Amino acid sequence: MDQRVVIIGGDAAGMSAASKIRREQPDRPIIVVERGAHTSYAACGMPYYIGGLIENSDQLIARTPQQFRDKYQIDVRTRHEAIRLDPAAKRVLIRDLNTNAESWLNYGELLLATGACPFCPEVDGLDARGIFGLSTLESGLRVHDALKREQPQKAVVVGGGYIGLEMAEALIRQGLDVALIQRGPQVMATLDPDMGELVSKALRHIGVQLHLNEEFSHFTVENNRVNAVVTNQRSLPADLVILGMGVRPNSQLAAEAGLRLSHKQAIWVDQTMRTSHDHIWAAGDCAVSTHLLTEKPVNIALGTIANKQGVVAGTNIAGGNARFPGIVGTAVSKICAVEVARTGLQETELHHLDIDYATATIKSRTRAGYYPQAGTIHVKMLGEKKTGKLLGAQIVGFEGAAKRIDILATALTAQMTVANIIDLDLSYAPPFSPVWDPVQTAARKLIKAL
Amino acid sequence: MDQRVVIIGGDAAGMSAASKIRREQPDRPIIVVERGAHTSYAACGMPYYIGGLIENSDQLIARTPQQFRDKYQIDVRTRHEAIRLDPAAKRVLIRDLNTNAESWLNYGELLLATGACPFCPEVDGLDARGIFGLSTLESGLRVHDALKREQPQKAVVVGGGYIGLEMAEALIRQGLDVALIQRGPQVMATLDPDMGELVSKALRHIGVQLHLNEEFSHFTVENNRVNAVVTNQRSLPADLVILGMGVRPNSQLAAEAGLRLSHKQAIWVDQTMRTSHDHIWAAGDCAVSTHLLTEKPVNIALGTIANKQGVVAGTNIAGGNARFPGIVGTAVSKICAVEVARTGLQETELHHLDIDYATATIKSRTRAGYYPQAGTIHVKMLGEKKTGKLLGAQIVGFEGAAKRIDILATALTAQMTVANIIDLDLSYAPPFSPVWDPVQTAARKLIKAL
Repeated sequence: MDQRVVIIGGDAAGMSAASKIRREQPDRPIIVVERGAHTSYAACGMPYYIGGLIENSDQLIARTPQQFRDKYQIDVRTRHEAIRLDPAAKRVLIRDLNTNAESWLNYGELLLATGACPFCPEVDGLDARGIFGLSTLESGLRVHDALKREQPQKAVVVGGGYIGLEMAEALIRQGLDVALIQRGPQVMATLDPDMGELVSKALRHIGVQLHLNEEFSHFTVENNRVNAVVTNQRSLPADLVILGMGVRPNSQLAAEAGLRLSHKQAIWVDQTMRTSHDHIWAAGDCAVSTHLLTEKPVNIALGTIANKQGVVAGTNIAGGNARFPGIVGTAVSKICAVEVARTGLQETELHHLDIDYATATIKSRTRAGYYPQAGTIHVKMLGEKKTGKLLGAQIVGFEGAAKRIDILATALTAQMTVANIIDLDLSYAPPFSPVWDPVQTAARKLIKAL
Repeated sequence: MDQRVVIIGGDAAGMSAASKIRREQPDRPIIVVERGAHTSYAACGMPYYIGGLIENSDQLIARTPQQFRDKYQIDVRTRHEAIRLDPAAKRVLIRDLNTNAESWLNYGELLLATGACPFCPEVDGLDARGIFGLSTLESGLRVHDALKREQPQKAVVVGGGYIGLEMAEALIRQGLDVALIQRGPQVMATLDPDMGELVSKALRHIGVQLHLNEEFSHFTVENNRVNAVVTNQRSLPADLVILGMGVRPNSQLAAEAGLRLSHKQAIWVDQTMRTSHDHIWAAGDCAVSTHLLTEKPVNIALGTIANKQGVVAGTNIAGGNARFPGIVGTAVSKICAVEVARTGLQETELHHLDIDYATATIKSRTRAGYYPQAGTIHVKMLGEKKTGKLLGAQIVGFEGAAKRIDILATALTAQMTVANIIDLDLSYAPPFSPVWDPVQTAARKLIKAL
């Protein structure tokens, strides 16, 4: 039996798995095939590098390919791309991107950790200079480079998700005029509109020109360089465009080989990270998770999930017995001083699932009201009428606000009721919280509506 | 039947109950008997007022007696003290501290919310000028006043609990030389020694002269003014002394009337806040709670518990049906830049309970390592060998560290295992956390030891 493990993709999920296998099996042959030049980099850190908060892009790299080779005896092959998968023969066709030479690589176990790529509109001019998606470290370096070399003045960010907003802030920091267009009526579609509105305010406050309910149409390009973004309502001059329209799983290799796909065309896996095919595993942004509240498959591209799934896949490939139970949809972001977080289900999802729910929103302070620098915090909480159970929560506020979402993510995982949250023995001292933590104040209001 | 509710004590528990009853029963007669001059004040805020972080003591008062009278029709009688309780006749003897006149007050339902008072050593000179305990707002105002009027130079804090440490910081802020004596080998006895040592370091770092393993002996007093604190090892010159030797429940009234007492001589109550006697309830620092992990009664003087118990007592007195399930021992504090938090059981308790446990301690960062101002965070986690369950946790670290204890307080309440914590869908973005939150890094290390 071929003992060799082949891993396609050398970032969070792939290298977490590789490291875990190495710890469990010091002699197992492990080959990592990575299309780019880097491994284990912090993709989430790129907006801060581009915005100038982080000086050196090397800080974003946890471990280099050479470190993996030397210290862990993991055969990392950068600038190599997997282009075809042959499950019957347990082999994968690899192209060396330097030489274009192709060769088959046999595997005993295969892990697909191919990540996600930015969603791109199908329009002309996408290849023009000045237009960037953001996913790999290379793509981040290209934006950084363009800022320095070409001194752009006017940026347009297409899409108001996490990456879009973080990039809008980064470009404001770098002194550009920044416009952001968003198809829907609010930024951050993972928030309910009332909470999204608070984020919109914060964006306008830092100087972002916000165009809501506006649909991207096309680019205008001159001399192969973008000069405007055209929407269904106007033309916005631009010498730098960031596509923040979301990402989609890189599942083409799996799809062509007949592997089962699921939500958003992500690769279907069970809780052990096994795909529909023997000896093939998947983990990270290219794979699905189970949503613990809906029990449905869901694909969310997040480093936390990728790392966890990578460790579970690695454990099982090494002969262990690990499971990744699933997620509750927790996310957090920061737009200058404003912190934003969410977990669980939002109103549109609850409507869709036909769940009878109530909501409550409160405004409180991050510290005791009399303590210096007590900042505003808004907490919205959603609960189920029939059972009294917590369904979700959203937070917008200043320093110290957002990480409170973890209390509610934990409570959701434990299937707590809103009443249970009121009873929680949360920490209190004036520098940290009012005597009723804002999440409990929200629960106290919500329980009256249930 | 006498509808009248009499509440003894006008701070957190008492006024939470009074407000709750008023909301439920607009016409119910409510009398609050308060020994001091103030109601609903933030006792926990006093070190910050004394330290100069808060300018005006009025900021510490949530609602004045007059506000309760005018807005809520609650008959608040300040400077009145309950001195005898007669459960058989459903009456309580009240002394007007202005006139010394005494009179019996009949009740339909009685709530004892008498709080706690600082533990004082039984030595001569305790009444000398310059020696202060800290519990009521008045006591805090007296210290503030003494600092201003008498310009003391050398302070000694007796006892290294939360109040002692917060006061040491406050006095350092005000420019005093501060020595702190602690009987045991570490400050903050609610932490394990290894974590307590980190707090000791922080205290020394801000200039506190720390005397561990040193027993308080007596004061030396001249002209009725303290001039030194004498320990079993030395004499420490002092013109200001803060007693931070802990507090004890004010349960004398209850004890003399034959009510059942429990842990630390606190008044025994069930989950509805009923005492051993009909029509008598107790809530707050004078009453017990149930520890959810040991299922034993426990008395912890904290504003959060007092507020929750007050609401539960008020609900039930008003004819509702509420329960306070209990606590897990969560606490948090801040010594200048260093944040300290704990929840659950510590090693000495686990030994005492004969529970077979393992621990793991990790050092991580409060933000992604590459993000500006990522501070150090130490997390110690304790888990049960037999069941894999979380037993407790302690955190010492810089900004953003301590509030993470709430994740673990919630996990303890939900009886989660250490493995469950690794799986939690906690929020992640570089300004808030490494990709593995430090509490999950601790869980990943601990699980190997279980």
